Amino acid sequence: MSTPEEFIQSMYSVMSSRGGPGYWKTSAKPVTWSFDAGLPDPTTFPLDDLVRLSDKVLRRDPAGALQYGAGPDGSTMYGFGGLRELLAEQAQRSVGPPVDIRGVILTSGGVQAITLALQAFLNPTDVIGMEAPTWNMVVARVRQLDLEAVAIPLDEDGMLLDVLEERLQHLRAQGKRLKLLYTQATFNSPTGVSLSLPRRQRLLEMAKEWEFLILEDNVYGDLRFEGSALPSMFSMDDSGFVMKIGSFSKTIAPGLRMGWLMGHPEAIAAIAAVRGDLGVSQWTARVIAEYISEGLLEPHIAEVNQLYRKKRDLAASVLEERCSPWVSFHVPEGGFNHWVELDEHVDSAAVRELGLAQGVDCRPGEKFFGEGESGKSHLRIAYSQVPMEEIERGLTVLGNAIKESIRPD
Amino acid sequence: MSTPEEFIQSMYSVMSSRGGPGYWKTSAKPVTWSFDAGLPDPTTFPLDDLVRLSDKVLRRDPAGALQYGAGPDGSTMYGFGGLRELLAEQAQRSVGPPVDIRGVILTSGGVQAITLALQAFLNPTDVIGMEAPTWNMVVARVRQLDLEAVAIPLDEDGMLLDVLEERLQHLRAQGKRLKLLYTQATFNSPTGVSLSLPRRQRLLEMAKEWEFLILEDNVYGDLRFEGSALPSMFSMDDSGFVMKIGSFSKTIAPGLRMGWLMGHPEAIAAIAAVRGDLGVSQWTARVIAEYISEGLLEPHIAEVNQLYRKKRDLAASVLEERCSPWVSFHVPEGGFNHWVELDEHVDSAAVRELGLAQGVDCRPGEKFFGEGESGKSHLRIAYSQVPMEEIERGLTVLGNAIKESIRPD
Repeated sequence: MSTPEEFIQSMYSVMSSRGGPGYWKTSAKPVTWSFDAGLPDPTTFPLDDLVRLSDKVLRRDPAGALQYGAGPDGSTMYGFGGLRELLAEQAQRSVGPPVDIRGVILTSGGVQAITLALQAFLNPTDVIGMEAPTWNMVVARVRQLDLEAVAIPLDEDGMLLDVLEERLQHLRAQGKRLKLLYTQATFNSPTGVSLSLPRRQRLLEMAKEWEFLILEDNVYGDLRFEGSALPSMFSMDDSGFVMKIGSFSKTIAPGLRMGWLMGHPEAIAAIAAVRGDLGVSQWTARVIAEYISEGLLEPHIAEVNQLYRKKRDLAASVLEERCSPWVSFHVPEGGFNHWVELDEHVDSAAVRELGLAQGVDCRPGEKFFGEGESGKSHLRIAYSQVPMEEIERGLTVLGNAIKESIRPD
Repeated sequence: MSTPEEFIQSMYSVMSSRGGPGYWKTSAKPVTWSFDAGLPDPTTFPLDDLVRLSDKVLRRDPAGALQYGAGPDGSTMYGFGGLRELLAEQAQRSVGPPVDIRGVILTSGGVQAITLALQAFLNPTDVIGMEAPTWNMVVARVRQLDLEAVAIPLDEDGMLLDVLEERLQHLRAQGKRLKLLYTQATFNSPTGVSLSLPRRQRLLEMAKEWEFLILEDNVYGDLRFEGSALPSMFSMDDSGFVMKIGSFSKTIAPGLRMGWLMGHPEAIAAIAAVRGDLGVSQWTARVIAEYISEGLLEPHIAEVNQLYRKKRDLAASVLEERCSPWVSFHVPEGGFNHWVELDEHVDSAAVRELGLAQGVDCRPGEKFFGEGESGKSHLRIAYSQVPMEEIERGLTVLGNAIKESIRPD
């Protein structure tokens, strides 16, 4: 008989692509300045309103707020109808044609919407398209699900669609097809780049011509500090090929665990069929519905954007001041981070190591790329969570780490 | 170019095993008496405590309650450490040896724990063992994931382990193996049957000998109205082969969306690695931790069990009175439902149709069995949610439907 460890190891060998032992590693060093994860600033959480509205929705309808939801009206798997209606109305205001509430499903943050879409529409070895770079969680998930990734590089106007076109032709020549394209069309993370309007139009045409679904991750879409808002791909689409992901994690609070996915009702039915839970909390969905109904969301977003703009500007000026001429970056019009390219003379591994030793953490660029791609010369610096007064100190420490990591010519 | 509908249909044809269009069907007739789903009675939800504790945890630590959780301490993917510690302590009290909190992960109800375990440990065509009958959601998920199910019939002491042994030998002869056995060892739904103590011991020996994981779904375990409590398989295990699922959905409220999975830390690491979300709500986890810390959970469970015992007894006496001699059932010692066998002269499809036409719904027996198995002569009648005064009326209507559905000899 094998030991449990040996047995579980043998399980892993069967399904090693899904992750192995030692998944959760405690970091050895305490982190003083965490520019690693794209977390919202906790001082923005609308505490008083959440307490008040939570009490209100519980008192008003405890049986509704605390039950699973009802099967017959779809509220168990799709989520509280009141919130889905508000989301449909909001989308409709910008789109025009009515959005069917059967085309709206609530998810545990935006991330669950991504996972479910990949599970619903893709089988192992199927082809998924994505930006290069893109969110590291998606890179990891694509690997775990054993999908074939087609990574499309970006310039300042987003994905290079000529490259996508070439890849589509290449796939066809191999007897394969692209089934789904994942895009953070507005404020790609890590780069902060958005897909330009003409490219959005062309991409929609390509989706129709080549018949692939577009999964538009718009969780950063509302976090715009300047520049003109771009219409979402979903709002421009008349074909049903686009699904759009939203989330309240960045704008209200992640502890609500509430995101959503919007699309053609039949596509959303496929999502509902693969979700391995019994939907999201009826309670927190009602809290958010009330928050929106009272007209609190839009002014709140305007307010948090003022804070994040200040943080972005401060982080940019400290990086300029402390790290020149060894870093270069474009200041994004929104979102939570700077995407910083290190000069070729800078040893990026040494920067990470020296920084961590002094308590400053940020995310290595290679995490945002699939295998065989680049990213080693980049760092993603998320300024969103670090208090204003600590941004300067933390990035000064990072700047010193960069200067200490310069290789001689 | 195909229409979106045609395109999505083509997607479905690729992945038809995962569910098709028209997933959410609104029922045509309104249901007055729903004995269908195993929902808790909403009058049991501890509203005042939840309101009070929700306010308390939000005010005390808004940044903790409303954020994602922290990566470095594992609280994002594993969930709030305070609640996991309480669950580990509780298990330790009954088990003896310490339970590592890395062996406890919070999930979106018990159902997500099941889904994640199947995803983590089983690949398509792998063999899973389960009771016959078992929870219809699991039957559906097994089919969706394209697993091979080995269904083990039950008697009044639970699974027939001689049959399991034969199936294990048969699998070995085919060059296959059982990887994981799903069991509701205490209060199997639909039957209410529990695995006897001697069989628990033998099953543990078999797991070690044949090297399979046991996934013990204990969500009904605390809902015992009479008889001696049986130790959980997890508490009897010294090998690490058993994982145990718990949930607060039946005991506190489903709207919290909180369950958990407990097992060997390496097995739980495999679960954390496949979860496609960013963990459960830090907020609601803190509410529950506070509820337990204040000593409210145990007396609350005792109280709800008094109500469910009354409902069980009332439902049993109405069924006896109104449906004799056309039904037979064993009164379960706990849980949410009666498993009723219809006499061979009763047309079960007609019962369902007549019942629904008059507003009474219950769950057809065949949903609890895989393909090629039986169940057509059974109904699961969940008494948990229906108010006391309506149980009599609803089951009277059902009784009349049964009497009207008797086939002549």
